[in-house]
Amino acid sequence: MHRISHTLKSISHSCSMRLNNMAPTMLRERFQQSVTANSFRSYLAEFLSTFFYVFAVVGSSMSARKLNPNVASDPSSLVVVAIANALALSATVYSAWNISGGHVNPAVTFGMAVGGHISVPTALFYWVSQILAAVFASLVLKVAVVGQHVQPYIIAEEMTGFGASIMEGIMTFGLVYTVYAAGDTRLGTMGVVGPIAIGFIAGANVLASGPFSGGSMNPACAFGSAITGGSFKNQAVYWVGPLIGAAVAGLLYDNVVFPSQAPDSIRGVTEGTGV
Amino acid sequence: MHRISHTLKSISHSCSMRLNNMAPTMLRERFQQSVTANSFRSYLAEFLSTFFYVFAVVGSSMSARKLNPNVASDPSSLVVVAIANALALSATVYSAWNISGGHVNPAVTFGMAVGGHISVPTALFYWVSQILAAVFASLVLKVAVVGQHVQPYIIAEEMTGFGASIMEGIMTFGLVYTVYAAGDTRLGTMGVVGPIAIGFIAGANVLASGPFSGGSMNPACAFGSAITGGSFKNQAVYWVGPLIGAAVAGLLYDNVVFPSQAPDSIRGVTEGTGV
Amino acid sequence: MHRISHTLKSISHSCSMRLNNMAPTMLRERFQQSVTANSFRSYLAEFLSTFFYVFAVVGSSMSARKLNPNVASDPSSLVVVAIANALALSATVYSAWNISGGHVNPAVTFGMAVGGHISVPTALFYWVSQILAAVFASLVLKVAVVGQHVQPYIIAEEMTGFGASIMEGIMTFGLVYTVYAAGDTRLGTMGVVGPIAIGFIAGANVLASGPFSGGSMNPACAFGSAITGGSFKNQAVYWVGPLIGAAVAGLLYDNVVFPSQAPDSIRGVTEGTGV
Amino acid sequence: MHRISHTLKSISHSCSMRLNNMAPTMLRERFQQSVTANSFRSYLAEFLSTFFYVFAVVGSSMSARKLNPNVASDPSSLVVVAIANALALSATVYSAWNISGGHVNPAVTFGMAVGGHISVPTALFYWVSQILAAVFASLVLKVAVVGQHVQPYIIAEEMTGFGASIMEGIMTFGLVYTVYAAGDTRLGTMGVVGPIAIGFIAGANVLASGPFSGGSMNPACAFGSAITGGSFKNQAVYWVGPLIGAAVAGLLYDNVVFPSQAPDSIRGVTEGTGV
Repeated sequence: MHRISHTLKSISHSCSMRLNNMAPTMLRERFQQSVTANSFRSYLAEFLSTFFYVFAVVGSSMSARKLNPNVASDPSSLVVVAIANALALSATVYSAWNISGGHVNPAVTFGMAVGGHISVPTALFYWVSQILAAVFASLVLKVAVVGQHVQPYIIAEEMTGFGASIMEGIMTFGLVYTVYAAGDTRLGTMGVVGPIAIGFIAGANVLASGPFSGGSMNPACAFGSAITGGSFKNQAVYWVGPLIGAAVAGLLYDNVVFPSQAPDSIRGVTEGTGV
Repeated sequence: MHRISHTLKSISHSCSMRLNNMAPTMLRERFQQSVTANSFRSYLAEFLSTFFYVFAVVGSSMSARKLNPNVASDPSSLVVVAIANALALSATVYSAWNISGGHVNPAVTFGMAVGGHISVPTALFYWVSQILAAVFASLVLKVAVVGQHVQPYIIAEEMTGFGASIMEGIMTFGLVYTVYAAGDTRLGTMGVVGPIAIGFIAGANVLASGPFSGGSMNPACAFGSAITGGSFKNQAVYWVGPLIGAAVAGLLYDNVVFPSQAPDSIRGVTEGTGV
Repeated sequence: MHRISHTLKSISHSCSMRLNNMAPTMLRERFQQSVTANSFRSYLAEFLSTFFYVFAVVGSSMSARKLNPNVASDPSSLVVVAIANALALSATVYSAWNISGGHVNPAVTFGMAVGGHISVPTALFYWVSQILAAVFASLVLKVAVVGQHVQPYIIAEEMTGFGASIMEGIMTFGLVYTVYAAGDTRLGTMGVVGPIAIGFIAGANVLASGPFSGGSMNPACAFGSAITGGSFKNQAVYWVGPLIGAAVAGLLYDNVVFPSQAPDSIRGVTEGTGV
Repeated sequence: MHRISHTLKSISHSCSMRLNNMAPTMLRERFQQSVTANSFRSYLAEFLSTFFYVFAVVGSSMSARKLNPNVASDPSSLVVVAIANALALSATVYSAWNISGGHVNPAVTFGMAVGGHISVPTALFYWVSQILAAVFASLVLKVAVVGQHVQPYIIAEEMTGFGASIMEGIMTFGLVYTVYAAGDTRLGTMGVVGPIAIGFIAGANVLASGPFSGGSMNPACAFGSAITGGSFKNQAVYWVGPLIGAAVAGLLYDNVVFPSQAPDSIRGVTEGTGV
């Protein structure tokens, strides 16, 4: 009991420290760090990786629908989308790993910002890159593919938006928790398979949730397919749950699971990573 | 013949040593090691990893059933569950690897305790964490998912409970044997892909046994889905076989396959790992 | 704006430098480097790896068609081909990694040549090896397999050749971008999982594009199956898009994403790699 | 031309050297090396890994048949067996890697013996372990699983035994070539993902050949399922092709692809490996 209350105190303390850091001077300085050449490369890496992730996820969903329009009663369509998710996320996180940290997901960036591993201005640029990439990937698919429409994520008819949010939130918690574990520089060589583990947990979660909440865990991907597909129904499900789940995962990992970590030991962009 | 009898003697010797270690003083000391902050983090890591493993496995089974209620005649439903198993176990073992050793399974913890790589009190706390996590994951799915029930593991109608126990026991032997090989610090850098290999053998076994014994290899997962699904029919199959298989795997690896190993060179929690 | 124009200048500068390098003396010297014993081993490694990649991709497509001739309405046929692609590319890139760099694809070789990481004469020998291997693999399948014909890649009826080229080009961009990231020696130990990431992005792209553009990303594979299957319809789709995509990926990675790289730090054959 | 004839000469030279090594004294000495405690551990590791590989492969084929008896027209049954192959081979090769070298296949052992990386007596003990394991795994499945018979590998009706042998031989060539590349100690850290690459090429080949030649590449697995299933029809297909393919792969890798290698630099058992 004492330990838990101590932990809670240290969480609230670290949060207030972060608020102090947001004082005007600090903010300007951080903003300047966010517009250097190194940062620009990070944004580009996030853009490219998110583009290819969304291309594979949205494209595979269109493929499955073309092969069998009745996707709601075909487990092999779920396999198509889930494997595309696992393979694409592993590969795109890998490509961006040493440049931007390999977030490829606004929820991951949010979880990293809450944990203090990336500054707020940089995180905002990451978000812009990721969302632009997702919209662009969906648009390319809409234009290039004839005879199939981009399909926004949908939740099962019998599900409530609240239940779907809970599922998406829990799964995003699992994803961001894995990202924290993979990016923890104290792991030594274990970090090498981090991108594989990150892609695998995403694929597993899609298999568990696809026919219920849609299995997105990625607000950018949900937004891109929604804007191109022309329906924002239940869009909140793919933002509220994932962002809360990501924040909780970040706070829990840093403060409880593995608390001795220095604020910047998880791979972020602020210091100009990239070798 | 001589070599084998020698080996058997060394097994019985190491067993009796372990019993001596269980003398009252030792036990209290070991219990105190089990309630430190480091240990608490291990239990939390086991809880979180087991939660996400069970979420993926039970959830994917519900997904497959929603897409095609007639799962007993659909190979692609088996693919859904088996791939979820492989991906989720790889990722969750990976996340917990440097904190708790990444057991994610009471049978693995049992196999580690039998081999002397984790103390009995710590193992009990691991079990509590794993079983709570499995129950909690099943409950979350029961509450969040509307229109599908949590389905306990079932064995094929024509199978006997004894035959199913044998299959589950053999497969858990294979799983724990892989865990021992992966956790062996003498492997050097090969340990890096250990979590992947562990997830892969689990997925392969599910493909081999799913329609026959259910393909659990994890008592916590079987218990969680049984308590939420409301049926403990054949529950013993998922405890007796796996625990025996795990114990045999641990004894065999330490005493015959790779006997020169010091008692603590396999990653455990006792010494406060984590970095 | 200023930064981008600067980047464009540096691209055009590095291109003109490369043209100067192509002066007659230089060319003869480079050609001589291309016919050493070390180079011969690289060509053989490319031949063998491409052979097995094409064998798996074309063979899996024949398998799927034998099991269900109506592949155009069966998502599990797409799973067969996409997983064969992912697994085979990971493994064959891995085998050739330390010998030839593991291109296994004329588009990748082209992207490496445009980036200056392999000389033009060597690249031509790579192309010959890759194309011969693809033709040979398709021929072996045509001769050994009775009752199924080799099937060239096809695009969906409703797709235009231009749309399909765009899709193939974008996906090849993603593939070559991943190859550049994986081969970047500045990554340190992360390079170890490079071949896995390369296979994974290929598999994900096949899931996204299979029923639309065919999902080749590999001119050799498309050529081999076309010459054996007896139809060059839409063959241009599998050359124009991929080669342009590969070239853009190489230039972008070297000049914008990770520009500080020395011309030869990406694994190539010129210096006689292999150990 | 000159280079190739030179290579052929060096092959024949190295073969005759090996025959000389087989002189009586040498043979006795090598036999004695084959019955040490270290060797016994290698045989046990081969037994266990082959057992679990065959269990997964034969079991997954029975699973698929139970779910859909009409496996000859169901691509998802092929996915079940191929993924089981890829996952199980990766994991079992991994477990035995530092103990026996992770052959898990008499054809691989044959290819290693031809290349001189394992002595003939040791190779024979490996064969015995692997074949016993395969028979035992098939028997366990036959006894434990009620309602499904063990099914020997079959070739498509329209295929000739010769054509199937060619396919199995070529695929085993690819498998053993990957094993040689993965076990090459000159690769440095790349060896870490070797077991994954080995499993992946096997899975890809099963997808390419399953409905045609059966997709075994492993004489032990074919023998075990044949003896238990009660039919040796076409059994020669699974021995002649794979053994020739394995031998050619070993000779080619050592003498042409990567010739500077010392005879024992590929991981074998003779020197008592296992750290």
